[in-house]
Amino acid sequence: MADKIWQKTTDKNMQHAEIVEKFTVGNDVDFDLILAKYDVLGSLAHCEMLHNIQLLTDEEWYAIKKELLVISQEINQNQFEIEPGIEDIHSQVEHLLIQRIGDIGKKIHSGRSRNDQVLTDLKLYFKAELLSIVDLTSALFESLINLSNKHKSTLLPGYTHLQIAMPSSFGLWFGAYAESLVDDLELLLAAYNITNKNPLGSGAGYGTSFPLNRTLTTELLGFKTLNFNSVYAQMTRGKTEKTIAMALAGLAGTLSKFSYDMCLYLNQNFNFISFPDSLTTGSSIMPHKKNPDVFEIMRARCNRIQALPNELILLMNNLPSGYHRDCQLSKEGLFPAFKSLKECLEMLHFMLQNITVKEGIVKDEKYKYMFSVENVNQQVLDGIPFRDAYKNIGLAIENNLFQPEYNVNHTHEGSIGNLCNDLIEKAFYEVKEKFN
Amino acid sequence: MADKIWQKTTDKNMQHAEIVEKFTVGNDVDFDLILAKYDVLGSLAHCEMLHNIQLLTDEEWYAIKKELLVISQEINQNQFEIEPGIEDIHSQVEHLLIQRIGDIGKKIHSGRSRNDQVLTDLKLYFKAELLSIVDLTSALFESLINLSNKHKSTLLPGYTHLQIAMPSSFGLWFGAYAESLVDDLELLLAAYNITNKNPLGSGAGYGTSFPLNRTLTTELLGFKTLNFNSVYAQMTRGKTEKTIAMALAGLAGTLSKFSYDMCLYLNQNFNFISFPDSLTTGSSIMPHKKNPDVFEIMRARCNRIQALPNELILLMNNLPSGYHRDCQLSKEGLFPAFKSLKECLEMLHFMLQNITVKEGIVKDEKYKYMFSVENVNQQVLDGIPFRDAYKNIGLAIENNLFQPEYNVNHTHEGSIGNLCNDLIEKAFYEVKEKFN
Amino acid sequence: MADKIWQKTTDKNMQHAEIVEKFTVGNDVDFDLILAKYDVLGSLAHCEMLHNIQLLTDEEWYAIKKELLVISQEINQNQFEIEPGIEDIHSQVEHLLIQRIGDIGKKIHSGRSRNDQVLTDLKLYFKAELLSIVDLTSALFESLINLSNKHKSTLLPGYTHLQIAMPSSFGLWFGAYAESLVDDLELLLAAYNITNKNPLGSGAGYGTSFPLNRTLTTELLGFKTLNFNSVYAQMTRGKTEKTIAMALAGLAGTLSKFSYDMCLYLNQNFNFISFPDSLTTGSSIMPHKKNPDVFEIMRARCNRIQALPNELILLMNNLPSGYHRDCQLSKEGLFPAFKSLKECLEMLHFMLQNITVKEGIVKDEKYKYMFSVENVNQQVLDGIPFRDAYKNIGLAIENNLFQPEYNVNHTHEGSIGNLCNDLIEKAFYEVKEKFN
Amino acid sequence: MADKIWQKTTDKNMQHAEIVEKFTVGNDVDFDLILAKYDVLGSLAHCEMLHNIQLLTDEEWYAIKKELLVISQEINQNQFEIEPGIEDIHSQVEHLLIQRIGDIGKKIHSGRSRNDQVLTDLKLYFKAELLSIVDLTSALFESLINLSNKHKSTLLPGYTHLQIAMPSSFGLWFGAYAESLVDDLELLLAAYNITNKNPLGSGAGYGTSFPLNRTLTTELLGFKTLNFNSVYAQMTRGKTEKTIAMALAGLAGTLSKFSYDMCLYLNQNFNFISFPDSLTTGSSIMPHKKNPDVFEIMRARCNRIQALPNELILLMNNLPSGYHRDCQLSKEGLFPAFKSLKECLEMLHFMLQNITVKEGIVKDEKYKYMFSVENVNQQVLDGIPFRDAYKNIGLAIENNLFQPEYNVNHTHEGSIGNLCNDLIEKAFYEVKEKFN
Repeated sequence: MADKIWQKTTDKNMQHAEIVEKFTVGNDVDFDLILAKYDVLGSLAHCEMLHNIQLLTDEEWYAIKKELLVISQEINQNQFEIEPGIEDIHSQVEHLLIQRIGDIGKKIHSGRSRNDQVLTDLKLYFKAELLSIVDLTSALFESLINLSNKHKSTLLPGYTHLQIAMPSSFGLWFGAYAESLVDDLELLLAAYNITNKNPLGSGAGYGTSFPLNRTLTTELLGFKTLNFNSVYAQMTRGKTEKTIAMALAGLAGTLSKFSYDMCLYLNQNFNFISFPDSLTTGSSIMPHKKNPDVFEIMRARCNRIQALPNELILLMNNLPSGYHRDCQLSKEGLFPAFKSLKECLEMLHFMLQNITVKEGIVKDEKYKYMFSVENVNQQVLDGIPFRDAYKNIGLAIENNLFQPEYNVNHTHEGSIGNLCNDLIEKAFYEVKEKFN
Repeated sequence: MADKIWQKTTDKNMQHAEIVEKFTVGNDVDFDLILAKYDVLGSLAHCEMLHNIQLLTDEEWYAIKKELLVISQEINQNQFEIEPGIEDIHSQVEHLLIQRIGDIGKKIHSGRSRNDQVLTDLKLYFKAELLSIVDLTSALFESLINLSNKHKSTLLPGYTHLQIAMPSSFGLWFGAYAESLVDDLELLLAAYNITNKNPLGSGAGYGTSFPLNRTLTTELLGFKTLNFNSVYAQMTRGKTEKTIAMALAGLAGTLSKFSYDMCLYLNQNFNFISFPDSLTTGSSIMPHKKNPDVFEIMRARCNRIQALPNELILLMNNLPSGYHRDCQLSKEGLFPAFKSLKECLEMLHFMLQNITVKEGIVKDEKYKYMFSVENVNQQVLDGIPFRDAYKNIGLAIENNLFQPEYNVNHTHEGSIGNLCNDLIEKAFYEVKEKFN
Repeated sequence: MADKIWQKTTDKNMQHAEIVEKFTVGNDVDFDLILAKYDVLGSLAHCEMLHNIQLLTDEEWYAIKKELLVISQEINQNQFEIEPGIEDIHSQVEHLLIQRIGDIGKKIHSGRSRNDQVLTDLKLYFKAELLSIVDLTSALFESLINLSNKHKSTLLPGYTHLQIAMPSSFGLWFGAYAESLVDDLELLLAAYNITNKNPLGSGAGYGTSFPLNRTLTTELLGFKTLNFNSVYAQMTRGKTEKTIAMALAGLAGTLSKFSYDMCLYLNQNFNFISFPDSLTTGSSIMPHKKNPDVFEIMRARCNRIQALPNELILLMNNLPSGYHRDCQLSKEGLFPAFKSLKECLEMLHFMLQNITVKEGIVKDEKYKYMFSVENVNQQVLDGIPFRDAYKNIGLAIENNLFQPEYNVNHTHEGSIGNLCNDLIEKAFYEVKEKFN
Repeated sequence: MADKIWQKTTDKNMQHAEIVEKFTVGNDVDFDLILAKYDVLGSLAHCEMLHNIQLLTDEEWYAIKKELLVISQEINQNQFEIEPGIEDIHSQVEHLLIQRIGDIGKKIHSGRSRNDQVLTDLKLYFKAELLSIVDLTSALFESLINLSNKHKSTLLPGYTHLQIAMPSSFGLWFGAYAESLVDDLELLLAAYNITNKNPLGSGAGYGTSFPLNRTLTTELLGFKTLNFNSVYAQMTRGKTEKTIAMALAGLAGTLSKFSYDMCLYLNQNFNFISFPDSLTTGSSIMPHKKNPDVFEIMRARCNRIQALPNELILLMNNLPSGYHRDCQLSKEGLFPAFKSLKECLEMLHFMLQNITVKEGIVKDEKYKYMFSVENVNQQVLDGIPFRDAYKNIGLAIENNLFQPEYNVNHTHEGSIGNLCNDLIEKAFYEVKEKFN
């Protein structure tokens, strides 16, 4: 194990140190590799600012900049690793710099702590992930609107209490999930806004005596504004993760619910939709099965993501202000959640390209009574008070005299005959634009 | 037990019905009373719209309007109750109308379901509660900014890993919690935006054949826009609650953390702040205690609120689309949470009027080494590479040669000497204005 | 407001004190009334022990005992209240004693803190509630076994992936939930064992210099053993609640799942079971509905209970050892959960008395292929390797040549033809007996 | 990609199948490798039983047995992998058998489904993990008892409300955590008992027409009894995981709390304990820090484990009876939790070998008043009513006349002078023995 910057003597009990390091570092190096490119971006901005405030000479800054760009390229080309015994991504980058350009490399740490450095890396990474999720959500949204428009005239039983209730349509069903994404964007936007603030320069949470120009690094890194207060900047560690997890959980909730509908509608007792055999899974002992594994796994993944905000709350709760190393473990749940949710968004989009909706479902005898509300309403529109009309139809049903009116004529905003998909699209893009 | 509108015969097994009703209704009537005034507002808007589309004559609309305003007044004067045997608030209002103006009263239900009616009540109630919370947050924010400005020069030990680390200040500490509220507003805004959409007219989740004008009720009720799609409108039941719970949890997280700091700083080993005896609690067997019960209860209340999003996710998760009565129980956690959080905001504001911060804390010997970073930085500013300066001071400490530099001269944005409270205020009010 | 025992002067700022009390006490008095009878039991045991170690004279003990028994009777007859200004149940009992028998009454607090006093109250209350839940579980278990035996020959489709899979039976279905209760008892037993330990005498968590005989109070109160270590005794506050909540959540999980099955099986697309009209609920606009509200509310209640362990973990987590007032709020979730779960157990038992299972379900064409496994197995038993038999039947199905074998002949332990309900009963009562 | 057993034709759209497989299988193969040795054990028992009921000839059984033992050895020697395109561990084992001993290998699947096969693997794995955790807990328990005995006379301030309250001791503190483990064992025992039941033979959750002898496989696999009902056996998937997670969370709660105490006691304001420098971590910019990273990471790991029961509830909740593939993802949280918790137990045990407790802490002026309770009690023992004694000492403190009595003489069970560690040990081993 190589020396740590905080190790003052070398005759430490090495065995002890290795036990401690193994236990405390855990999988963290894997996550650090994901952060590598953002760490270099942060260092570039920090050093440009140090140069700007004359803590780096022109020569020093050019040397550092040139080599950081080389390292950046190595990262992009997967030629970068954190060497055994190097503690983290920050040390690895500094280590390479010193190796390559000598003592100048030591200066990139001036006026920074690993605390604000990792905070910056994380926020840059989170921003990129959130934007990527917004893009995938956008593509899914378009699919849903298209399917809604395409199948607007195909009726579907609507359920309440899981009891057959009233006529619905595939247009309504697909459109509902599209509109759900509009609201999901709102939470993502809140998370994005909270993330889009520069913590660099807050040091270990108490600022520094260096005359930093934090406004400059904010601009260089493309943050919208600063986490001003240094103590608060440190407090965003964990809080940012928690808020993002809430936003992911909101979106995951929509996908989970849609997946549940899919499993139910694929069930042979419902039998409302189908997918090609190649997209369902068979059974090892039941030759006739077409299992909706994709949607079960999607539901399960999204339900795990919905458990994430709580995990992060438990992780960070009841700690006084100031950094605690507990923060490190916030990565373990959140980093994989980004990946998993992006895969779910892509997979759902893919599945929707292959969905077949069944025509003529509602003509089945068991759906007959769901048209009774239409008959009640017709009587009301003819002047009979609602409660009386309701009782009339109820009696007709009891006496087997009920005749359904299959011709559904709904005209109000958001009804079968007037889906308002154009307005839903407008609403979606209004929120989406706020991410820019 | 009086008759239910859905009871078709009266010879039902009354005993059965009572058992079922007792079990299913539970405490719901208590919550319905809170919703009463919003229910009347919803009915007023709905009936004005029915009049507008000529489903109510002028006379009917005037009669209904007049009586609904009377009921509204009765509610405001606490002269309103849900009578035994009346199922819910919607039935009680209709019941009173019929009693007082006859069969016309029955017409207020035309083109509505209890599902969209309660959704509308809830959204109106939630909007009012959220705005009330924003106002209380605003008052707390001002207190914190004032305290931060007032105590900007009083130093405080800053901790990392709960180890004495670097100089902080009461200015930074109070200001950090102020800035935390800026980010908390973002989540509240997302929740507010999601709530501020009119579900009225979506019926039981599948619209209706009545030619409703939902745009009109949206304007009348002061919603910013509609939940367009009727299936989605129904889906917002539970989802709205969940999102609001997340926003409350975010704010509660800030208050919980602040309470934790308070308990720690009141502890005699820290002893950084104090409150008048009348605001602390004694012990039944320990005469010298000054217990911070207010902050323990505040922390505990806020931690329960942080558990609420998860409770609501568990309640609503893995249910297919369409109304389920499970929704009813979402009130049980959320309604008391509004009350509890508002009380916490008020109480914290009150306590802050009475806080005393201790002067001269950092002069204690045990805080001496936290000024070492200042010395390191001074060497760096004098041209010594950071890593070398760090080792120099480390050796000075080991050899007992270290002399602290108590004069903290931090100048960058968000540091002890440059709190940026004006910019934090600007940021707060920018978000706050978006609620209008 | 009356004086608190820890108030040393009376010229306190009364307004302050009232604000603090209102905020900190909250609803706690309601819960204290539930604890009242256990508080008197605790005081009786404590005083008998004080008499035994000669800290109370015979006269004092007799006077106290006589009056505590009077108070106990008043509690049982609902003639007991906590007077305005009295802080809690412990103070109210002491207050009454002093009022009625003078200064002797003050002595019941000797060698006790409110901390171990409330711990003792809670543990006695929890024990009673747990035993009550075990009894109700036992009655439900018997219902399920009876229904399983009664309907052992009625086939039901078995699903995997929510796809029609293989023949099941009502015997298996009811029996499965019966056996689920066996495992639920195990968690309840663990919770009961943890609860069944006497904390009295641990004071405020650090014991006392009084020469208490804790073994004697353990016997008098009917605890199996002691929480020995005083620091640990205090630590059980919150931990006991958390463990009990886990056990309740386990049982609630079984009821929630059963309720879900009920809702699904009552759905008209499945239509496997029915209940009398009087036990289902109608719709305000759909005359034909028979909504399973009881099971939706049961599911929702049980899902809230499943959220409780997490709430309690969040409440108590990351607090160092020693009492914190946060504990107080553990009652708010747990006390109502006992009531709610007991009502669910009773309601489910009641509903099962009224269930009707449908005969002949599996003869419907759509269930035909679930008998294919039988055909595969028959070929295997005739000597054909499984994989080949599986392919043979698969081809027969594809070519429309498949003929189902409706005669299900399962003989192994736990199969349709051999439910082992007697062994499941044996297992249930073996665990149940361990509560004694 | 190789063929799946449920693929009936080979002209499937391979691209589709690969997309589906990548999404649905995810990381599951990694977990399957952990299960490999248990899968072979299950197959051995199943085949011995098939031989016993004459579904395998002697030759077949001997051939299968011999080769399974070879595979078992390969697994132990890390010479086993799941080949690309092979779906899971069950298919890999069968694949190897067929490759090596021909068509006989196909027979090991007779009378089994992958559902009961993986259930059996999991239960065997869980049992081993739980026993391993019990052993590590046992070692930790002994450490704690030893430290309690060793430091029984060293006083420590006891806190309530985080306020200095009354004298405690290191004997009490270490002993408290030892006794906490006794209760943690109870939950682990409940989880173990629930796990220790054989699901093999329940097929896909509805049994099979094969005349299996499940009692025989129960004996062969060392399960204590059966999950009798086949539908219930399948229901234990997810439920077992949830229950185990609760038990792990209970133990993790104890370790988390202890870690919190450690961080607090290592804080310089408390300064009650210390560890060698080699076991603490320095800071990159603060030369004087000795950060308790081990305990922060331990606390964080244990807090993540405490979030696990909720994650599993969310994953499995509101699914009707019958297998759903969602179950697969229960491994993702639980498998790493076993590893993490075992490492925490080992690490804590290791750290305790190196802890130093500080002597003479309580002589510091600020702890003086915590001896006031002693003085109150002394007056009570001298015959003064408690409330009066309490007021006397309170006045003495106010008037600066209070003289502490440092000689703590506590004698009752579980107090400083009478730790009852022998009885706590007895209690621990009584529960531990029930695992056999």
